[in-house]
Amino acid sequence: MFESILKNVHEKTPLVHCITNYVTVNDVANILLACGGTPIMADDERDAVEITAICDALVINIGTLNERTIRTMLKTGKKANELSHPVVLDPVGAGASTLRTDTTFKLLKEVKFAVVRGNISEIKTIFKGSGTTKGVDADISDYITDENIDEAISLAKKLSAKIGSVIVATGTIDIVADPNKAYIIRNGHQLMSKISGTGCMLTAVIAAYCASNPDKHLEATAAAVCAFGLSGELAYEKTLKADAGISSFRTFLIDAVSKLDAKTLIGGMKIESR
Amino acid sequence: MFESILKNVHEKTPLVHCITNYVTVNDVANILLACGGTPIMADDERDAVEITAICDALVINIGTLNERTIRTMLKTGKKANELSHPVVLDPVGAGASTLRTDTTFKLLKEVKFAVVRGNISEIKTIFKGSGTTKGVDADISDYITDENIDEAISLAKKLSAKIGSVIVATGTIDIVADPNKAYIIRNGHQLMSKISGTGCMLTAVIAAYCASNPDKHLEATAAAVCAFGLSGELAYEKTLKADAGISSFRTFLIDAVSKLDAKTLIGGMKIESR
Amino acid sequence: MFESILKNVHEKTPLVHCITNYVTVNDVANILLACGGTPIMADDERDAVEITAICDALVINIGTLNERTIRTMLKTGKKANELSHPVVLDPVGAGASTLRTDTTFKLLKEVKFAVVRGNISEIKTIFKGSGTTKGVDADISDYITDENIDEAISLAKKLSAKIGSVIVATGTIDIVADPNKAYIIRNGHQLMSKISGTGCMLTAVIAAYCASNPDKHLEATAAAVCAFGLSGELAYEKTLKADAGISSFRTFLIDAVSKLDAKTLIGGMKIESR
Repeated sequence: MFESILKNVHEKTPLVHCITNYVTVNDVANILLACGGTPIMADDERDAVEITAICDALVINIGTLNERTIRTMLKTGKKANELSHPVVLDPVGAGASTLRTDTTFKLLKEVKFAVVRGNISEIKTIFKGSGTTKGVDADISDYITDENIDEAISLAKKLSAKIGSVIVATGTIDIVADPNKAYIIRNGHQLMSKISGTGCMLTAVIAAYCASNPDKHLEATAAAVCAFGLSGELAYEKTLKADAGISSFRTFLIDAVSKLDAKTLIGGMKIESR
Repeated sequence: MFESILKNVHEKTPLVHCITNYVTVNDVANILLACGGTPIMADDERDAVEITAICDALVINIGTLNERTIRTMLKTGKKANELSHPVVLDPVGAGASTLRTDTTFKLLKEVKFAVVRGNISEIKTIFKGSGTTKGVDADISDYITDENIDEAISLAKKLSAKIGSVIVATGTIDIVADPNKAYIIRNGHQLMSKISGTGCMLTAVIAAYCASNPDKHLEATAAAVCAFGLSGELAYEKTLKADAGISSFRTFLIDAVSKLDAKTLIGGMKIESR
Repeated sequence: MFESILKNVHEKTPLVHCITNYVTVNDVANILLACGGTPIMADDERDAVEITAICDALVINIGTLNERTIRTMLKTGKKANELSHPVVLDPVGAGASTLRTDTTFKLLKEVKFAVVRGNISEIKTIFKGSGTTKGVDADISDYITDENIDEAISLAKKLSAKIGSVIVATGTIDIVADPNKAYIIRNGHQLMSKISGTGCMLTAVIAAYCASNPDKHLEATAAAVCAFGLSGELAYEKTLKADAGISSFRTFLIDAVSKLDAKTLIGGMKIESR
């Protein structure tokens, strides 16, 4: 199944509209190309609704939001819903400020998301209805470990049932859940938290995978999380070999995504389900 | 002649003001430095007109336009015209949305462009007065091939006569045309379409070349297209040798532009004229 | 002392809020992670004041300012002052346009900066109250050399006394001064002026260093300048060895910052004080 998911992305070259932050927007554009999709960015409301209509999926990332872009996020989200395009939310920093938290809940109320991807602190904020995330990284106290994983899975499944989206909580261990099933994924490398934009990039890859696999968003999302994490592992090996640092690692990560084939993916997935 | 064009860029270090999209703006800044120029970005209208006045050329790229930046594009374009600085237009996504198409025509009406560079779908949209570009990439049906190249050349020459700008249509084969003469350029590598920003970067390089060669915009533009395409070929060789992916290719591309000398350029140009 | 300054950054992982330009924002985010801090970007005024409050330092960089972000700069600057967080100003292009010059003076009037870092032309503009900077690079006539260094030191000390900030004037020779003492630093490589964003990156590193060393901003700033310059030297060696160009150099620079340890720093600092 995961093999055909990857094949579908490469065959369909999904066009993904991203309303995203300006910090990592270039990484998002290149990772979409690397994974087999194509990016387009438009955030003026007069432009964006039309652009959404010609695309196959929409990413809404609140990393650097403002009044103008929030308006556009709501309008394009509704348009994508109308057209049954998958919409993926990245609630960057939900819990870290009132505007980010409020915008997240406003978006969740007015737009139906196929997938919501965040770090565990952001996901907890959405579950509880409030939060105190420290910046854009997960709080250490929230980290998913082998000790608390059952609790995290239960939370993800409940949240999925509540908001009707596939939930992705990423960290050392990643969880991808719908109300009935959760995938636990142990791909990835800790260096991924030492570069800017890995979360934003993964969110965009998920959108490309879901757009190309409309009938199985849960599995498509799990495949995207594995593919991206595995690429991180391959990039780490190259970084180590080159005695390089974090910027080379970022380059090698995007490289690995662009070169990932089905055989490597299937051979390298560290996934189980519950 | 092409040798002196390159020399002029290196000697004059043209300062190029860019009003461009936030997706590829960093690539644009670095490619300007790589090719021998210097970038400055300013898009607040109170700032931008003054900045235009101290620069040698202006790039207007509509990749992520909004009301505020459209206003600035019009004002700075007119100021650059007043000062006889070359202005280069990159109509990203013209034909893909009403706002992009309308803004392109408004800009063409109110500002005199030295050069307009787009993919063939964008150029056709300008020629016909409307279009249905799929996103920011050229439609496959529009691709310039050996079969339809005469038609594409004729279109470029006619459009050049109509709007008074050098026309650049880029793709596998590139065309650089004024009303009387067209250069056909076969430099470049298909991997250039697999990274974000190659079009935007080329537009900026063209501006630097035109600013440094005010009396020969057609030839300066052709030289810029060859230099950038040839750099793509050299970057591809390095990528292949390193068994690397698209992000390394992007790095090697900017590297190659920064190291390109006259001898390599003259030896590697694949250019003919009609 | 410099050893413990570096150690403090690595131990405290300071969270640095950046209101910065969209040209180099991604480099700024990654250099903060590389040097041991964490970045967060927020520029909507409803968001940014709250984000400032959860951070350890604030960077204000006027590289691509507009009405909306200027308002946010003033509000967050005051909030950071209230909370005694260090605020670092990067007056990009002060002297190149009225808006940039006026905004610089407005910020200096309403916000207390721990450090102001600019090229020598920008620093002179602030000292004199007006200027004619050519774009975002220093004028050649302003370059600090062994001949005019006494004059430059005197200017930096006087400006520091006048505005109450540590002054950093960067170029081939860097000066870091408070009213009583100036460090002269000869680390760095000229290739650093051939990539976009080195100034912006250094400003962010200074903020991380000052946040982690609240009692010694002068020394923390000098250490940051040495660390960044030395990383440039190490990156140049790698670039030369790989026969690479400016984009590889940028990657190697961020790599070097991410790998810099105390021993390398102490062994490589080229610093004296007057």
